[in-house]
Amino acid sequence: MKASQFLISTLKEAPADAEVVSHQLMTRAGMIKKLGAGIYNYMPMGLRVVRKVEAIVREEMNRAGAVELTMPVVQPAELWQETGRFDKMGPEMMRIRDRHGRDFVIQPTSEEVVTDIARQELRSYKQLPKNLYQIQTKFRDERRPRFGLMRGREFVMKDAYSFDRDQTSAKASYQVMAAAYRRIFDRFGLTYRAVAADSGAIGGDLSEEFQVIAATGEDAIVYCPNSDYAANIEKAEALAPTQSRPAASQPLTQVPTPSKTACADVAILLGVPLQQTVKSIVLATDQLNEQGEIVKSQVWLLLLRGDHEMNEIKVAKVPGLDQGFRFASTAEIVEHFGCEPGYLGPLTLQKPVKLVVDREVAVLADWICGANVVDLHTTGVNWGRDLPEPELVMDLRNVVAGDKSPDGQGELAIERGIEVGHVFYLGTKYSKAMNATFLAEDGKPAFFEMGCYGIGITRLPAAAIEQNHDERGIIWPDAIAPFTVVLCPITPDRFPAVKEAAEALYAQLLAEGIDVMLDDRGERPGAMFADWELIGVPHRITIGDRGLKEGVVEYQHRRDTTATKIATTDVLAHLKGQLGV
Amino acid sequence: MKASQFLISTLKEAPADAEVVSHQLMTRAGMIKKLGAGIYNYMPMGLRVVRKVEAIVREEMNRAGAVELTMPVVQPAELWQETGRFDKMGPEMMRIRDRHGRDFVIQPTSEEVVTDIARQELRSYKQLPKNLYQIQTKFRDERRPRFGLMRGREFVMKDAYSFDRDQTSAKASYQVMAAAYRRIFDRFGLTYRAVAADSGAIGGDLSEEFQVIAATGEDAIVYCPNSDYAANIEKAEALAPTQSRPAASQPLTQVPTPSKTACADVAILLGVPLQQTVKSIVLATDQLNEQGEIVKSQVWLLLLRGDHEMNEIKVAKVPGLDQGFRFASTAEIVEHFGCEPGYLGPLTLQKPVKLVVDREVAVLADWICGANVVDLHTTGVNWGRDLPEPELVMDLRNVVAGDKSPDGQGELAIERGIEVGHVFYLGTKYSKAMNATFLAEDGKPAFFEMGCYGIGITRLPAAAIEQNHDERGIIWPDAIAPFTVVLCPITPDRFPAVKEAAEALYAQLLAEGIDVMLDDRGERPGAMFADWELIGVPHRITIGDRGLKEGVVEYQHRRDTTATKIATTDVLAHLKGQLGV
Repeated sequence: MKASQFLISTLKEAPADAEVVSHQLMTRAGMIKKLGAGIYNYMPMGLRVVRKVEAIVREEMNRAGAVELTMPVVQPAELWQETGRFDKMGPEMMRIRDRHGRDFVIQPTSEEVVTDIARQELRSYKQLPKNLYQIQTKFRDERRPRFGLMRGREFVMKDAYSFDRDQTSAKASYQVMAAAYRRIFDRFGLTYRAVAADSGAIGGDLSEEFQVIAATGEDAIVYCPNSDYAANIEKAEALAPTQSRPAASQPLTQVPTPSKTACADVAILLGVPLQQTVKSIVLATDQLNEQGEIVKSQVWLLLLRGDHEMNEIKVAKVPGLDQGFRFASTAEIVEHFGCEPGYLGPLTLQKPVKLVVDREVAVLADWICGANVVDLHTTGVNWGRDLPEPELVMDLRNVVAGDKSPDGQGELAIERGIEVGHVFYLGTKYSKAMNATFLAEDGKPAFFEMGCYGIGITRLPAAAIEQNHDERGIIWPDAIAPFTVVLCPITPDRFPAVKEAAEALYAQLLAEGIDVMLDDRGERPGAMFADWELIGVPHRITIGDRGLKEGVVEYQHRRDTTATKIATTDVLAHLKGQLGV
Repeated sequence: MKASQFLISTLKEAPADAEVVSHQLMTRAGMIKKLGAGIYNYMPMGLRVVRKVEAIVREEMNRAGAVELTMPVVQPAELWQETGRFDKMGPEMMRIRDRHGRDFVIQPTSEEVVTDIARQELRSYKQLPKNLYQIQTKFRDERRPRFGLMRGREFVMKDAYSFDRDQTSAKASYQVMAAAYRRIFDRFGLTYRAVAADSGAIGGDLSEEFQVIAATGEDAIVYCPNSDYAANIEKAEALAPTQSRPAASQPLTQVPTPSKTACADVAILLGVPLQQTVKSIVLATDQLNEQGEIVKSQVWLLLLRGDHEMNEIKVAKVPGLDQGFRFASTAEIVEHFGCEPGYLGPLTLQKPVKLVVDREVAVLADWICGANVVDLHTTGVNWGRDLPEPELVMDLRNVVAGDKSPDGQGELAIERGIEVGHVFYLGTKYSKAMNATFLAEDGKPAFFEMGCYGIGITRLPAAAIEQNHDERGIIWPDAIAPFTVVLCPITPDRFPAVKEAAEALYAQLLAEGIDVMLDDRGERPGAMFADWELIGVPHRITIGDRGLKEGVVEYQHRRDTTATKIATTDVLAHLKGQLGV
């Protein structure tokens, strides 16, 4: 491609609403152009990246035996009503009515439609397993779209759905996809982790997220540097403490802690380690009647160490909290604790609550908690002496760096990531809801065992940039760069030899199948280099008159700080070496 | 691809709602699957065809210097309000509101968005000409979606938009696209015509439709078998008659024609040629005030020969009718003619009307028309004698087969076609409405001269089938077949040599880059052949045990009535010859 035939449009300044670096750089590099909140034009430069991502995904999905189809963007509501998701899904799902008043949705995913296809087309166990996928536009009406392609409203997703005859086969299909995803992410040339994720009500370990590692990532990833263990923070287990509880050594004492509502402040005031303090989190569950009205509520008290954070996914697995819970209202808190939030604790309650204790709290002695009186905390609290031994002791917290790895291979570390892929074993959730069956080997109808597998096609470039950029702009991995090589002739209008050499090299690289851009715009060298550093083409060849007279051109990788002189006769071989082709 | 890894799903019967052969065959061949009215899943077999169409279009668009981008499916209403199309477009345009109550449209085309991009990105004449295109999902909420992919609601279109500095350059850009379209349609391997189409208010000849010829086509195409002349029926000019008007030879006579309201019936009753009769068509135009209320109406009488059809596009160019017209109401007709429709004519009016006469009527003598009395016609009517010489004489009719070709190269013929592409010079319609300017060479802002260029990507396969099918199914041209070659081993489970030979040939063809399908499903030969004839793969190789023992396999093109024996050693060479590679 020659620049004069293309559309190159770079900006010095990022738009004011671009909060993250990928959004800033994609806009400045002319890759995307905002049309509305969370809605972007993929400009020619950006579309090239998206197409390369798509091509890699498609190749590996096909290699893994998946079959591509396309399901409509606009889908009739009926199927979504079968699974109940038409009503259950929030306003993120865009609903429309056609001219005849029929309801439709703009697809946020396609479980319903693909299950409808399967129940009609996959009639016999002989046709299984089958994995159907599409690379298609999706829409989610995010309340607050932001971060450019990271959390847009209209986006492209690769969504695949596997159909199997039984759990064993479904798990094998899942593993085929998990392996394909590793090949896909390897080919992208990004640093990533496949992390265990929560599999919700289904249980088991068949849920993995593919996280591109980036300091700016929204997700916390837990991993063990000595092993393969990796999980997202929701999923990562905090092992039961191995130490036993020390004996009580302090008397129960009430100490004034004026205006100190946070454990950290209390610890500083009292000169004790934060690990000695305990925070109280008050939840509530509601019992509803058939009309959906609250008949009865139950208040729960969760105790966690002051330095730990509650993990909602784990809390949602506590017996009694697993049907949904909410934070208690101030009125409920006052009713049960006789005190407003900030100084709460498990001692001296007004009304009984259900107590759930994190494993680490259960092994504390002489701990500190609120006294249920404003500006007052209690120190020297001890299980068995000051309150009964805890009955419900569970893992309620997020792991922290330094915790033991669940696989026993060392200590956990935490880094940030951007979720770009997800493989998930669905079981029969959708096939049962939609009565999707096939004839099993025994001649009887059986429900499909399903899995679903997503990759955020248009999110991936943003994640790649969050991971790979510097102050000058984007640094693309070769595999998904808009162009692999850019040729920069210096003032070719003044030096016919430069123009000629650039055109000749361009033709030569094209003939070798190298994705090359010739910048024939005639820009000043500084502006030209700045453009290509912003756009992030990984390999640059600069052709100047002085160099040509010496028989050299200059090669510079986007990550190099200086250029290397290469004999004009060696350029192709050098480039091929750099590209690994 | 092996059939066992793919999704093949053929049906014996077409669905009841499939009115046209392409809809029937695409459904039966498992290429599309209806999800709702006018909304289809592109099943794996159909998607392969769509992808091949896309690839050819993309290659030729790129070759012609166009640059690909993608504009969102969901577009904010604001831009559509700038051109007034948000209100002007009917219910075909799907409108939605997001969770914040903002209006959006699902794109039916993208003139507004691309013009918005141009006015921001193309700032100088130095960046022009530029042609931006996308291959993207569109939605039109047709009142009565039907004919499968021929008139669906959700479909994929390639839409390109050119931006030029002046008319000369815009016309050159138009010609580049018109030439690219010829290459594209040549590559599809279909019989087509590029026909001149009406260019609406803009005038000039820069509007061509690309019509795939098919007996079932919705459009009438006029062409000259001796030349390149081709136009759609709306556009094709009926040349002025060369004969002069004969002298009057009959007296004006009123003849009873009880219950004969159609010219054809009158001609039969009176034993005269239909060409001697004249039909009266009564139109009306309205003058509106600022409130949009009708202030005054004018009634028009159009006279056409009894054997001719009125052409509404031509009528809309008559001075005075060019701002819109309607058919007159019965009340208006009775008021002016003193008679209800069926026996109308230009003589003895109650109130004056504006008269417009087709060129062929102007040269008639002794003609027949209604007498403005029920059950009565007038014969022997003559211009100048019975009524004044006509003042407004124009081409008002559709041409008919046998008319002289406008290029003087012989007589016109008419055939049917399916419009699959359109190239159109837009001028400054959108750039003026959206104030889209660039800095011209003289330093002043100038409006972009635009063109737009569409190809119905998902309509093309349907048109190809309307043109290429027989009683057994589809017959794909090589370029867009879902698979180019199918290998059909006969009972490979019983004959290991057959299975082995089929696998070996499959591997060999794959290695040659031939898009080959190996049917390894183990179906009975009859069912297997029926499937592939229905699906329409153009080249079939049958591998049987008996043949192998003789050292041959059988080759059959989908259009062949019998198979040809080919030595196993010659198969590749034979196939390459057939494929022209």
